[in-house]
Formats: sequence, C-alpha cells, structure tokens
Amino acid sequence: MFVELPVAKAFTFIEEGPVTLITTNDGHDDNVMTISWTMAMNYEGHIAISTGPWNHSFNTLLETKECVVCIPTVDLIEETVRIGTINGPKNNKFELFNLSKISSLKVKAPMIKQCRTGIECHVIDYIEKHGLIILEPLRVVFNDSLKEAKIFHAIGDGRFVVDGEMKDYYNVMKKWVPEKVRKK
Amino acid sequence: MFVELPVAKAFTFIEEGPVTLITTNDGHDDNVMTISWTMAMNYEGHIAISTGPWNHSFNTLLETKECVVCIPTVDLIEETVRIGTINGPKNNKFELFNLSKISSLKVKAPMIKQCRTGIECHVIDYIEKHGLIILEPLRVVFNDSLKEAKIFHAIGDGRFVVDGEMKDYYNVMKKWVPEKVRKK
Repeated sequence: MFVELPVAKAFTFIEEGPVTLITTNDGHDDNVMTISWTMAMNYEGHIAISTGPWNHSFNTLLETKECVVCIPTVDLIEETVRIGTINGPKNNKFELFNLSKISSLKVKAPMIKQCRTGIECHVIDYIEKHGLIILEPLRVVFNDSLKEAKIFHAIGDGRFVVDGEMKDYYNVMKKWVPEKVRKK
Repeated sequence: MFVELPVAKAFTFIEEGPVTLITTNDGHDDNVMTISWTMAMNYEGHIAISTGPWNHSFNTLLETKECVVCIPTVDLIEETVRIGTINGPKNNKFELFNLSKISSLKVKAPMIKQCRTGIECHVIDYIEKHGLIILEPLRVVFNDSLKEAKIFHAIGDGRFVVDGEMKDYYNVMKKWVPEKVRKK
C-alpha cells in the first residue's frame, strides 16, 4: 500500500504547492495541523514552512524537531479545511475526522493512512525573524492504493483549487530534471 | 486592463503554488527568470523564493533589491518552461518569447503584459544559509482582460498541473480569512 520512494523525490511533492497535513508527537499525544504555506527549497528536498507560536504544533516542532508532512488528496479536502480551523492539543483531530495513523520509521509523529504522500522530516532550523521552519526529509512514502490522485491548493480566501490537466514538458526540461526524479 | 488590488491580496496569488516569472532590471537591461520554489509567508504578503548565484537574476535581485513576481496562466506554459531553461543576461527573453513589458510604478523591473498577476516587490532580506530571498509586496495588479484564468503548478520532474475545479470553503474558514481578501 505505502511504497518507499527515494528521498530525492521529496521536493516534487512540495513544489506543486499542495495543502499539507503536518503531524507531530509531543511525547504523549499526536497532533496534526493544516499548513499551506510551504515551499520546496532545493533538490535535496528541504522544505520551508511558515508557522508560529499561535499554533500548538509549532512548540512541538521546536521541542521534538520532528514531523511528518502528509499530502491529502481532494477526498480529504473538507477534513483538511476543518483541521485548519481547530487549534490546540485537546482535540483528538485524528478521531474526529476518521484519520488512521501509520507508524513512521524515522520519527515519532505518524503518517496519515488516507494521505497520498508522507515525508518524515527533521526540523533543522528555525528562522525566528521570518517565522520559517526548515525541514530536512528523512523518508518518503507514497500511497499507491488511493483511487483519487488529485491534490488541492489553497488560495487563502476560502477557496481551493483541485489539480486539473497534467502537461508534460520533460523533453524541454530534461537537462534540469535530476536523474532520480524522472518518474514519480 | 490591469486593475489595482490591495497589497493585502498578494499572498492569495502565491499560496496557490504557481509557477512564476520574476522580472528584474539591472540598471541597463530587463531580465526574467522562471521560479516555482516560492512561498506565501504571512498575511502581509511576504514571499520567500529560493534561488542562488548560478542564476543571473539572483545577483540583480541582491544589487537592486527589486523585482516583479508575475504569474502566468496556462496560455504561457511553454514560454515559462523554456525561459526556465535559459540562463544569463545575453538572451533577450522578452523578445524571444513575445512577452510585452508594462512599466511598474514602484520598481524598475517590468510587469509582463500577458501575465495574470504582477506583484511589485522589494527584496528585504537574503538568508544565505538557506538560499532564501525574502520579498515584500509593494503593489499588486491583476489583468482582468485575459480569457484564460487558469494558472499552473510545477511538479519538478518535467510535468506541470493546470488548475482544475474550484471549491469554496469560505463558510467553514471565514474566521480565518482576513477581511481584505474575501474577494479576489
């Protein structure tokens, strides 16, 4: 069901600009937050995310230096939006939204079974001045059993755009596509 | 044709995860580069972009501290991909790809007439350790005369995804949508 992918492919899942569900584990409980302010930083797969102290998961991220960046398909859009409206450790969002956990290998935070992709990450830096957390990918898993493959993007005004037509410019770009990411 | 939008809306164009065309002016010549490693950082509209010294525009960005982040629709996808494969100041990419320039008001770099959105920006920081440039939006213009409204997202392996269906969760999220961005 979940297949391992080379970590070199991590950036290809973030570059698209997906809305993500980021899980953490504070030593006692798992938590999950919705983040759409994310960024692929380089071909090594470093990911920048923007969050701050108003977010409960933020403190856990800085303390444990671990998380999983999970990417939901449009089948989970309502759950993802609603998770984004709930803050704090007291809500068991996994139960509330029927999200199943799968144990990660490199971090304590869980992968979400219903998501398409999971990127287990270490927090390697926090740029306080700009509210940016820098993540390093440790492991990438891809759920190849989901019927729905389309992810979705947030506009920020309450609207979301679902993936549409796919266009392939590999022949134009091939000199710039790292060898390990030529097939997803 | 180009209408002014409040700067408060800048982040809504970046949060989607578009492929962007970023223009610069080095004092003599205009230049344009394709960047899909971008990020909405906050509601003030700060934008992080990832680039480095291998990119000619990078030096201009650091010297002039100005640029315009232009967002093309899928009508410009081939031009945008090809611009991403051309480096250096010697190619007049505007002529080569029939892109028309419109003067900006706050910066010397031009807006691209065929793009949907233009965000005139100041460079306010460079985080050398992570190769991130931080932009502050000064002015947002929106081209309301384009027939094509769909933008596109890069996967990084040569493929691109065009915007598909739009879904509206404003009623769920409204507490979290800043007042000025409730309509785009």
